[in-house]
Amino acid sequence: MVKRKPKIVCIGGGTGTYQVLLGLKKYPVDLTAIVTMSDSGGSSGKLREELGVLPPGDVRRALLALSDLPLAKKTLSSLFDYRFNNGEGLVGHSVGNLLLAALTQITGREDLAIVEAERILETTGHVLPVTLDNIHLHGILKDGTVVHGETNIDVRRIKPNVPIKEVFLDPKGEIFSKAKKAIIGADLIVLGPGDLYTSIIPNLLVSGVCQAISNSKGKLIYICNLMTKHGETNSFAASDFIREIKKYLGEASDKLKVVIVNRKINLPMTVSAWYKKYKSTPVVFDRKNLGGLKIIVGSFAKPGKLLRHDSQKTARAIMNVLK
Amino acid sequence: MVKRKPKIVCIGGGTGTYQVLLGLKKYPVDLTAIVTMSDSGGSSGKLREELGVLPPGDVRRALLALSDLPLAKKTLSSLFDYRFNNGEGLVGHSVGNLLLAALTQITGREDLAIVEAERILETTGHVLPVTLDNIHLHGILKDGTVVHGETNIDVRRIKPNVPIKEVFLDPKGEIFSKAKKAIIGADLIVLGPGDLYTSIIPNLLVSGVCQAISNSKGKLIYICNLMTKHGETNSFAASDFIREIKKYLGEASDKLKVVIVNRKINLPMTVSAWYKKYKSTPVVFDRKNLGGLKIIVGSFAKPGKLLRHDSQKTARAIMNVLK
Repeated sequence: MVKRKPKIVCIGGGTGTYQVLLGLKKYPVDLTAIVTMSDSGGSSGKLREELGVLPPGDVRRALLALSDLPLAKKTLSSLFDYRFNNGEGLVGHSVGNLLLAALTQITGREDLAIVEAERILETTGHVLPVTLDNIHLHGILKDGTVVHGETNIDVRRIKPNVPIKEVFLDPKGEIFSKAKKAIIGADLIVLGPGDLYTSIIPNLLVSGVCQAISNSKGKLIYICNLMTKHGETNSFAASDFIREIKKYLGEASDKLKVVIVNRKINLPMTVSAWYKKYKSTPVVFDRKNLGGLKIIVGSFAKPGKLLRHDSQKTARAIMNVLK
Repeated sequence: MVKRKPKIVCIGGGTGTYQVLLGLKKYPVDLTAIVTMSDSGGSSGKLREELGVLPPGDVRRALLALSDLPLAKKTLSSLFDYRFNNGEGLVGHSVGNLLLAALTQITGREDLAIVEAERILETTGHVLPVTLDNIHLHGILKDGTVVHGETNIDVRRIKPNVPIKEVFLDPKGEIFSKAKKAIIGADLIVLGPGDLYTSIIPNLLVSGVCQAISNSKGKLIYICNLMTKHGETNSFAASDFIREIKKYLGEASDKLKVVIVNRKINLPMTVSAWYKKYKSTPVVFDRKNLGGLKIIVGSFAKPGKLLRHDSQKTARAIMNVLK
């Protein structure tokens, strides 16, 4: 009997999911990335507003993580990741975003555009938008202030010291049928790491996502962030992340079985200066509210210009859960 | 003994060279396209001005002609050829031009950018810019008026009924070393078809091009245009095209051995209306000034939305010259 490859679905967006995919694609698994569609800033936001396409940024990053081009064609991925730094109308645009936008206009559909991009980039695994609907993220702060748009929550200029009480989607959007199918059929669902309220939770807010997780036969893992983010998760400990994730999982919260948490980090000086500037601090593992959860604690941080999850170590920990 | 493939160099730009390359790539030949770098309008002109790269339009078209992607990746060539029709700052830009501009910024060199694009598009043969210098085309009309910039000669708004006396480059630019090598080593050099003063002659004006043709061991063929172009070649007969080509070939004019001319065309009504609007008429084969030239007369036009050289018929005629 041929053993089928385990199906792993990673839900998120941004560089956190990128790192996880980069590690997992080295294993013999059937990999699907489901990414947020609520981005409203930068190159993605512009294309969304001006061309009427879904925000391509998180799709682009996931495609790049899964791209498996032969050496002779590696430039194609550099190209996909390149950002114009000059030229009126072009500055700030990522070439990959432009390509995804053009493919959407050529094929007439966001999901078909991604399928074509997968072919071009020779990806291992698939990338699915969490929804094909034009959704918008909003936040309510603890003092009642409402912040509109993902980018205004992500880069908080409005009262960055007032904690977020709640985020919601309006319009809410319906889960993309293929994303639903992938979640339900998964052997393992990996949530995060990534910006809590702007990359991870926006996926859970889409109508049908929590239900699909709840109906899935797979275990749910949450990978907790390494660092807090000013304006989003100021002074959050691991338990705060877990509490919020459980809250937004709602009916699916009892599916959460495993949390991957990083051991305390000693930041190298250069990195530390950057994070200090952005008022970001290491997430403390406080061992609170962990009832019923298996916690995998380890050294998952890979130092670099910025602190990221080490893709190999993180993937190994995820694969161990499958055993 | 293994017989080496004959080396064919096509010099030009635009859709004329595109058609010729499309036909020739089906033959077992070593194919090189040398394209003009004087374009100053549209998407190319914008990128040239704003990003400081060479105009990518003619390179893009030649690459597309030579692209030999497997069916599963055909979208990559559609993508390369796609033009944004909306989006502030993007409208009018060809995706292929943007990719070539980004590749130039990534690799730091125009010629390396093209090599990478050749790999990505899996081309049969190579594309070389005629020069890597930042050249500009100017024209002097018969009444002494000077017209600056390729696009102002190509789309003549200034005195379109006054014939062009002369075109020149300032700065002139030096032939790209690889283009020189390709011309000198060619078994056959194919000039045209294409806009006489804006796609074909600008190549001959680059310092070293005529000398390279003169020093080449290969025969030179000129493919005469099917239609005149208002503001460039108003009421030109075949002999007028040949006279101008010979004039700009200068020292290399005695290398011109063969001219491919189209037999009189009866334009279909729909096509005829378009050409009438743009004051364009069929080029008449007047059999004047043909001393020493072998003339191949045939039906080379392929009717369509616009009249183009039939790539198969044209390539067959070119290949016959090689025999």
